[in-house]
This record gives sequence, C-alpha cells and structure tokens, in this order.
Amino acid sequence: MPTGVAHPIDTLAVVGVGLIGGSVALAARRRGLAARVVGADQNAQTLQTSLARGILDEAAAGIEEAARRADVVVFCTPVDRVASQVRVAAAACRPGTLLMDAGSTKAEIVRDLDDLPGAAPFVGCHPLAGSEKSGPEHARADLFDSALVVVTPGDRTLAEALARARDFWHGLGAHTRLMSPEEHDRALALTSHLPHLAASALAGIVPPLWLPLTASGFRDATRLAAGDPALWAAIFHANRDALLDALDKLGEQLDSFRHALQADDRSRTETLLGQGFAQRAALGRSPDPSGE
Amino acid sequence: MPTGVAHPIDTLAVVGVGLIGGSVALAARRRGLAARVVGADQNAQTLQTSLARGILDEAAAGIEEAARRADVVVFCTPVDRVASQVRVAAAACRPGTLLMDAGSTKAEIVRDLDDLPGAAPFVGCHPLAGSEKSGPEHARADLFDSALVVVTPGDRTLAEALARARDFWHGLGAHTRLMSPEEHDRALALTSHLPHLAASALAGIVPPLWLPLTASGFRDATRLAAGDPALWAAIFHANRDALLDALDKLGEQLDSFRHALQADDRSRTETLLGQGFAQRAALGRSPDPSGE
Repeated sequence: MPTGVAHPIDTLAVVGVGLIGGSVALAARRRGLAARVVGADQNAQTLQTSLARGILDEAAAGIEEAARRADVVVFCTPVDRVASQVRVAAAACRPGTLLMDAGSTKAEIVRDLDDLPGAAPFVGCHPLAGSEKSGPEHARADLFDSALVVVTPGDRTLAEALARARDFWHGLGAHTRLMSPEEHDRALALTSHLPHLAASALAGIVPPLWLPLTASGFRDATRLAAGDPALWAAIFHANRDALLDALDKLGEQLDSFRHALQADDRSRTETLLGQGFAQRAALGRSPDPSGE
Repeated sequence: MPTGVAHPIDTLAVVGVGLIGGSVALAARRRGLAARVVGADQNAQTLQTSLARGILDEAAAGIEEAARRADVVVFCTPVDRVASQVRVAAAACRPGTLLMDAGSTKAEIVRDLDDLPGAAPFVGCHPLAGSEKSGPEHARADLFDSALVVVTPGDRTLAEALARARDFWHGLGAHTRLMSPEEHDRALALTSHLPHLAASALAGIVPPLWLPLTASGFRDATRLAAGDPALWAAIFHANRDALLDALDKLGEQLDSFRHALQADDRSRTETLLGQGFAQRAALGRSPDPSGE
C-alpha cells in the first residue's frame, strides 16, 4: 500500500478466505478501499496461501480477533454458518463496526440476525459473482467489476448502515440493487439454485459408459454441477421453500414438453423452445446488470 | 489448392453449408482431403457468403448437380430433410459415390434409407461438434480436430462403405466410434437432447423482471437454449421415444431432490449433488473422446 493515502476503511476483515472472500480482499487492496486487510479462516493452510499470494496483509487468530480490529467485516462463509459467526463478531467488535455477509440465500440469515444491537449493524448482501471453482487460489481482484450485488435490508436495518454497505460494494466496482430478503430468495431459486440442481441432475443420470459421448453443450449445461456438494446442499436447504416452488415450475414446463412429444406436436415443441430461446437471447442483448 | 498433389477425394460435395457443412468444407480444404469442394444450399445468400469466404470452390445449382459431380457427398441439413435429399442424390450420382450425413439423430434416417441400392452407399454419421451458433460465418477449419464422430451402420451397410466413411472423418482430424443407430439415439437423448430441453425450460420459466439477477452460472446452464428452435424441434421429434425415456429419468432424479428437500434431509441432498459432481469431475479428468 502506498503511504500517505487516505483510505475509506482503515481495517477490513474477511471471514472465510475462499474464492469470494479472497476476491473481496484483492479488490479492496487494488482499489485502495482499505489500508489493511485481515483474514480469518478455520483452515490454517488457506490463511498461509492467502498471505503468500498477497491476498491478505495479516491473518487473525479467529473471528473475535478479526472483529475487534476491523471497521468492516465481510463474512464469506457457508450460509449455514453466517448467522452464528456474525453473533460472535457482534459481541467482540467496537461500536459502529459494519458487518456484512456474501451468502447466496438471505431470508433465513437476515431473520436470524434481526435482533442484533444497532451498535454492530448487520446488512445482508449477495454478490452475483463467482464460479464453480473455490479456494483463494482462484480469487480475482476484478471479480466484482460491473457485477451486481443484491443488498437485502431487514425490517430494522438502519439507513446509515445500508448506505455504508452499498458504498462498500460500489468501491469494489460493483453495482447494487435493493431487494427484500424474501424476494431475493424467490428470484435466486429460479436464476441460480434451480439451474444448479438441474445441472447436477443432468450430470448424475448419464450412464458412465456414455459420458464420452458428451460435447461442449453438455459441459456448459452441467458446469454448475462441479460446485461443492456440501456448500450447495446448505444453500438449497436454507432456501428450500422457494426452491421447491421453482422445482414445481420446472416440472410444469418439462410436462409441457412431454405432452408435446407424446402428441408428436412439433409446432408446440417449437413454441416451447422459442420461449427459452427468446429469454436467453434477451439476456445476450441486455447484459447491463445494474438495477439502479 | 496446390497443383500436382494427389488428393484422396477429387470432388467433395457438401449439402447444407451452415456451421457443420461449412466446417466440413474448410477442414477438407485445409487438410488437402479433396481437390475441389462443391456446395449446395437452398439459400442463395449462404452460397454467396461461402464462396466469398473461401469455404467452397464452387456452388452447385442443386442437390442433383452436386451429387452428379461428387465422389463423396455429406448432408449437413436438418434431420427431417436428410433422408429425402439422400434419395435425390442416390438417383443422380455416379456408381460408388459415398453418401453420408451429419445429423444429430440416426435411427429414423438409417431405417428410412435401408433400401438404398449398394451402388450409392449411405453411411449415417454424427460429429459431436458444433455450438449454439449457426451459419457458414461461424464455420471453422478446426471444428473436428480431436472431436468424436459416431458412425452408425445399418443392417445392410457394406464394410467398404463404412471404412471409407471412417477414413473421411479421420482425414478431417476426428476420432470415430461405431454404434448402432438405436444406441446412438438413446445415448444422445441423455447427453445432448435432454440437456438442450432442460436448458430451454430453465431459461423459459424465469420471469423477465428477474433476468437481470442471472450470473455466469445461469448463462452456462442455459446456453443451449440459444439453438434454433425449429432445428431442435425436428431433432426432438425424430428421437422422441428415447427423449421421453430420458425425460422420465430426469423426472425421477428431480423427484429425489424434491423429497430430500421436503424432508429437510440435507445429507440426502448432498449425496444427490455428489452424484452429479462425481460424473462432472470424471468428464474433466478424462477428456479423451476416442472410443477406439
């Protein structure tokens, strides 16, 4: 870090230094958002790798130490651990320390943390970035460039904490969009969790003998299945009501295809394929992820 | 073409000069497999583009003219047109002209052409290459490098014709694998047609309002949905029995996920995700597509 430069944040702590946490640290350092980045991770090897790769300035002995030293703490840990870790940090940190997460589900976490004292404000966040890869070795300083971060205030979230959270992500190069935690979870069930589930199902049902008959289309369609099963099981179960609704919607669409095939109604099949084609094409034409 | 070089084929004809047909022509020219490549296409603009881009040496007025002039004809047209076009060519060509297709389904085509005279042998083929893009402007001379081409002899296919067909694809840089047309169709239902159907369903059911909440995972999972709806409806219906069986298998796997979610049985969900993970990982570890 160059000396003599004022940074918006003195000490940033990242809890969970994987692909997302490592990328938060790298982006904050590259953009001069924080004078110092401290990391906590239950895996000592991950901390060593992160220090060696210049992702972190320092490793903290645990969440309490990281929280005590930080002005801002970002939790990039599995969704089933975020709430309890935030409570540990909230009890240890100085008043005014901003606590945020980066989890893929929001309603359960925001609800669980609704009773936190205002002195250690928590704001739920979800950066729509990442990949099937994991670990700090895949962290990238540009992961959030032009990415969308959904910020999901709860009923008691204070406006000042919300503004600081959004400024943080804007400082990393991202756009932000406000949604209720519940709407976020319903939307992500369809745009992320269900596609992951379907990719896994498609990959899982092919007899191994026929795997050599797959080409680039199958690789694309099943890439999400390479995500860590334990992490994704936690996400699915944290959002299971919305995911079950999404599964119903997929089942209805698959049934429509089935009926068209059974009736040998090719024009109906073409219409159904046209729905997916049009929405996929719209995605290609308007890549602007900003909701602002 | 350099003069004085002996080519395995004097005149190669390509019927349907899109992504696949254009790539067959480019690869044959680059590798010196044919002294001359003639193309036929119902779209005059496609022929103009292909001549201008050096994909073809000459344009034929139609299938009959192309077949009369050629030693080898490759049909790269939609699967519901192949059989009737091959019959037109078989009636027009010189004895010994090899006729092949490149369609994504095989049983119906091979069955329909089983009564062709031996003087104009037909061999069903399916190169596992391509993308959601179409048209000669996306043709690539290296599309078949190390790709797998499934060759599907029928009950009456002669060994000599089969050997010539395999040599042709090897000459373009591909591997070949023999399968019965029926096994090919059952396999491809699971490795290609069902993933395409699922990608389209996933893309089709997202409310447009939530499309901005999609990230790279959704783009990968739905990329196949950008394929031409009419082409793919023809493929689905040419292979509808196997595709309906594949849909049943997918439905069973989705039901297993549904039951695990309803019972909040996270360990069961993780096991199901683990099946997809393991098969996807095996794909990454052994990319050799050769079945030989």
